[in-house]
Amino acid sequence: MATIKPAIPKGTRDFSPEEMVKRNYIFDTIRTVFKKYGYQEIQTPTMENLDTLTGKYGDEGDKLIFKVLNSGDFWAEAERRNQKAGNPEWSSKTLLPAVSEKALRYDLTVPFARYVVMHQNDITLPFKRFQVQPVWRADRPQKGRYREFYQCDADVVGSESLLNEAEFVLIYQEALSNLGLKDFTIKINNRKILSGIAEIIGKPELIVDMTVAIDKLDKVGLNGVTKELLERGFTEADIERLKPVILLEGTNGSKIDQLKAVLTSSETGLKGIAELELILEYVSLFESQTSNVEVDITLARGLNYYTGAIFEVKTNEVPMGSIGGGGRYDDLTGMFGLKGLTGVGISFGADRIYDVLQELDLFPERTSLTTQVLFSNFDTEAEKFALPLLRKLRSEGISAEVYPSPARLKKQLGYADDKKIPYVVLIGSEEMQSGLLSVKNMKTGEQAKVRAEQLFMYFKQTTDAGV
Amino acid sequence: MATIKPAIPKGTRDFSPEEMVKRNYIFDTIRTVFKKYGYQEIQTPTMENLDTLTGKYGDEGDKLIFKVLNSGDFWAEAERRNQKAGNPEWSSKTLLPAVSEKALRYDLTVPFARYVVMHQNDITLPFKRFQVQPVWRADRPQKGRYREFYQCDADVVGSESLLNEAEFVLIYQEALSNLGLKDFTIKINNRKILSGIAEIIGKPELIVDMTVAIDKLDKVGLNGVTKELLERGFTEADIERLKPVILLEGTNGSKIDQLKAVLTSSETGLKGIAELELILEYVSLFESQTSNVEVDITLARGLNYYTGAIFEVKTNEVPMGSIGGGGRYDDLTGMFGLKGLTGVGISFGADRIYDVLQELDLFPERTSLTTQVLFSNFDTEAEKFALPLLRKLRSEGISAEVYPSPARLKKQLGYADDKKIPYVVLIGSEEMQSGLLSVKNMKTGEQAKVRAEQLFMYFKQTTDAGV
Repeated sequence: MATIKPAIPKGTRDFSPEEMVKRNYIFDTIRTVFKKYGYQEIQTPTMENLDTLTGKYGDEGDKLIFKVLNSGDFWAEAERRNQKAGNPEWSSKTLLPAVSEKALRYDLTVPFARYVVMHQNDITLPFKRFQVQPVWRADRPQKGRYREFYQCDADVVGSESLLNEAEFVLIYQEALSNLGLKDFTIKINNRKILSGIAEIIGKPELIVDMTVAIDKLDKVGLNGVTKELLERGFTEADIERLKPVILLEGTNGSKIDQLKAVLTSSETGLKGIAELELILEYVSLFESQTSNVEVDITLARGLNYYTGAIFEVKTNEVPMGSIGGGGRYDDLTGMFGLKGLTGVGISFGADRIYDVLQELDLFPERTSLTTQVLFSNFDTEAEKFALPLLRKLRSEGISAEVYPSPARLKKQLGYADDKKIPYVVLIGSEEMQSGLLSVKNMKTGEQAKVRAEQLFMYFKQTTDAGV
Repeated sequence: MATIKPAIPKGTRDFSPEEMVKRNYIFDTIRTVFKKYGYQEIQTPTMENLDTLTGKYGDEGDKLIFKVLNSGDFWAEAERRNQKAGNPEWSSKTLLPAVSEKALRYDLTVPFARYVVMHQNDITLPFKRFQVQPVWRADRPQKGRYREFYQCDADVVGSESLLNEAEFVLIYQEALSNLGLKDFTIKINNRKILSGIAEIIGKPELIVDMTVAIDKLDKVGLNGVTKELLERGFTEADIERLKPVILLEGTNGSKIDQLKAVLTSSETGLKGIAELELILEYVSLFESQTSNVEVDITLARGLNYYTGAIFEVKTNEVPMGSIGGGGRYDDLTGMFGLKGLTGVGISFGADRIYDVLQELDLFPERTSLTTQVLFSNFDTEAEKFALPLLRKLRSEGISAEVYPSPARLKKQLGYADDKKIPYVVLIGSEEMQSGLLSVKNMKTGEQAKVRAEQLFMYFKQTTDAGV
C-alpha cells in the first residue's frame, strides 16, 4: 500500500482533547439551559434526500450543498437514464440528479421542518426542540468560516405566544452569563416594523432593498446608507422620511414612541411595535433584566423567512460578528405539506463563542483537566503495588491512570505535564516498605507524604475542593 | 414550490426526544468510564479525503464508502481530465476519481490513525483517546443494521504494555455494570495462539481459513466445522489434531494448560498464551473479577488486522450479537508513513446496547424526564402571576415551563402527559388570592397545596429525592 501523506479536506477540522473539553463545555452549558426551559433534544440524519434540501436556500445555497454520490454502478445507471431521454449531452446540471439523490445537512432548520411533518402524529404541540449537530457548506473556507461546523438551535413550533420570544431572551441571558460573558447585547427587531416603514414610504416592494441598505449603518454610516438607498431605487424624499427611523436613538421606550409616531398609519407596523412591546414586557415580568436588550430596527437578518421578531446577539467585550440570532417564521413546514404552523427559534454561534471565551480567557481551568492522578511505574513490583490503589481511586470516581510500563521518572513526569495531570503518585521501594507514598503536585512541585490507605481520601478532598 | 412528501434516506434515522435521552444516557455512561481511565476525547471531520479511506477496508469495504461529489462544475472538470487522457469511455470506476475527492468516515479507526500521524508532534505517547461519532456505510439496510450509526471507541497507541488490555477488560466491566447489565461475558483470544495452532498443524498459510471455520462452532457444531475445514483444504488428520483445541472446555486456567501442551513447539503460540496469562493476572491484580472473562480460542474477529489480544463481549441476558469488541494491532499508522506504532482498542456497540437495555427495561426512569414542572395558563393574569415563580424554579436548576398561552385545562394536562412532565402547578383565581397553589402529581393524580413562596423548596425536595 502506498504511503499517503495524511491530510483532511480544506475547511474541516480535527478537534484535539483540549479543544473537545472546551467545546463540550460550551455545548453542555447551552444544552443545560435549553433543557431547563423545557426544550427537548432531537437528532436528524447527516444525509437528507437531495429533494428535501434543494430549493430551500436559494440558488446560491443549492450550489453550496454537498451532494453524495449514489452507491453502486452510478455511471451505468446514469447512462441508462440518458438513453431513455434520447442521449442529450451531459452537463453537471443534468448529471447531478442521475448520480446523486442524497446530500449533507445544510442547516438544522429544514431538517427540523421535515422532522415535524414526518412525525406530526407523534408530536404534541407546541413542540419545543433543540438540536446540536454539525452542518456542511461548500463555502470558500476562510478565517472563522468552515465547511463543517456545529449549529446549536432551539425552536418551538405550534405556538403563537410571544412568551416564547421572551424566553429566548432569557435563554440567551442565562446561557451567555453561565459561559462567563458579562457584557453582551441582545438586539431585537420585528419584520412587521420593517414592512410598516416600507409601506409608509409607499414602497412596500422594496422592503428587502431598504433593509439590506440600513443594515449596513454600522459599517458605512449614514452617507453610505443614503448612497445605497439611492442606488436601490429610493428617492431623496424617501430617504428624508427614513432618516429619523435609521437614526433612531435613546432607550427602547423612546425608540418605540418615535416609531409609533412614524408608523401611525400602518396597521402592520403598529402590530410589529405591539409585539415588540409585549416581548419586552414579558421579559420584565420574568423579573429579568432588559438593560442588555436593545431595540434595533436596522437589524434585518433572515428577512427572507422571518415574519415577526428578529434577534441578534453581540458581545461587547471583543470585536466579533454576531454570536447568536434567530426569529419568528410562519409556515416553515408548508414546503412539506403542513400549512399554518408558526415557529420561532434561536441559534448560538458555537465557533465564535469559542473564540470569544478563548480571547477573554473564560474557559474554567477545570475544563482542561482530564486525568487527576498518575501513578508512576518504575518496575513490575511497584506496578503491582499501584493497581489496587488505582482501582480504589477510580471506584471513588477519581480519574486516574498508571504509566503503562516501567520508564524513567523524567519521561513519566513529562507525560503528566503534557496531559496536564495535576498529581503524580511516586512509588519506589522506600514507599512500598513504609506504605507512605509521595504525592507530587505538578503545579507547585511540592511533594506530600500520604498513607496508601488514605490516598483516596486525600484526592477526594483535593478534587472536591476543585484544586 | 412543489410540496415534497417528507422522507429520509433508507438506513438512516431520526432520533426523537425520548430516544435521545436514552442514547445520551448510554454514551454518557461509557464516556464517563473512558475518562476515569485516562482516555481523552477527540473528534475528526465527517468527510475525509477519499484516498485516506480507499484501500483500508478491502474491495468490499471500498464499495460501501459513501463518496461526496465535488462542488462546482464537476462534469466540466471530469471532461477536461478525460480529454487529457485521450477520451476513453467513462465507467463508474474511471469517473469516480474525476468527480469525487472526499468521502464519509467509514469507521473511527482509520481517521484516528490519520489523526495520530498528522498531529504526531503535538501528541504525547502513549496516547489514550476515545471518540464517539457517527460513521456511514452503504450496506443494505436491515433490522439492526443502519447506513448511519454511532461508534464508540477507545484506543491507546504507543504502548506495548498488556496493562492496557487488562484495563479494557475493566472498562467493559465497569461501563456495562453501570448500564445495569448483570450477566455478560468478555471473551478473549490472541491472534498469536491462532497462528501457533496453524503452525503446529503445518498449515500456517491457512490460518484465516482455519479461524473462519472454527469461529462457526457455536452456530454449526463440530460436524459443521469439520465439513468446512475439509472444504477449506484441511485433512482428516489435521482435524483430529485440531479437535482438542476446538472443543477446549473448563476454566480459563485449564484451557490455558491444555493449549500449552498443544503449542509446546510453537514459539509464537506460547507467546500468545503468555500474553493471555499476563492480561488475566493484571485483571486479578486490579482485584477485579475474572469470572466474566472467558478464554475463547474460536474467537477470530478482525483477524486481518489484530496481531495480539482479541476481545468480544456478549450479554447472556438476551439473544443478541456481540455488544463490543476490539484487539491489539501493530503498525496501524504505517499506511500513513509512521511505522512501528502499536495500538490496542475496543469499541462499544451502542445500537445493540440500546436494544438490550430496552428489552431488559434497564433505562432509568429519570432518563425519560425532561421538564419537571409545568405551570398552567388560564388567562393573562395567571400567566403574569406564574412568570416570577417559573423564573425562581429555573434559577434553582429545576427544568420548568409555562404553557405558552391560555388554554383549556384538558389540553394543558394532555401536553404534560405527552411530555411526561411529572408536576403541573394549577393557578386559578382562588390560588392567586390565597397564595396557596395546587400542585398536581401527574402520576398519582393527587393534588397538594403549596405556598407560592415555598414552591421551589417543594420541588427541590421532590427532585432531589428522585421522585
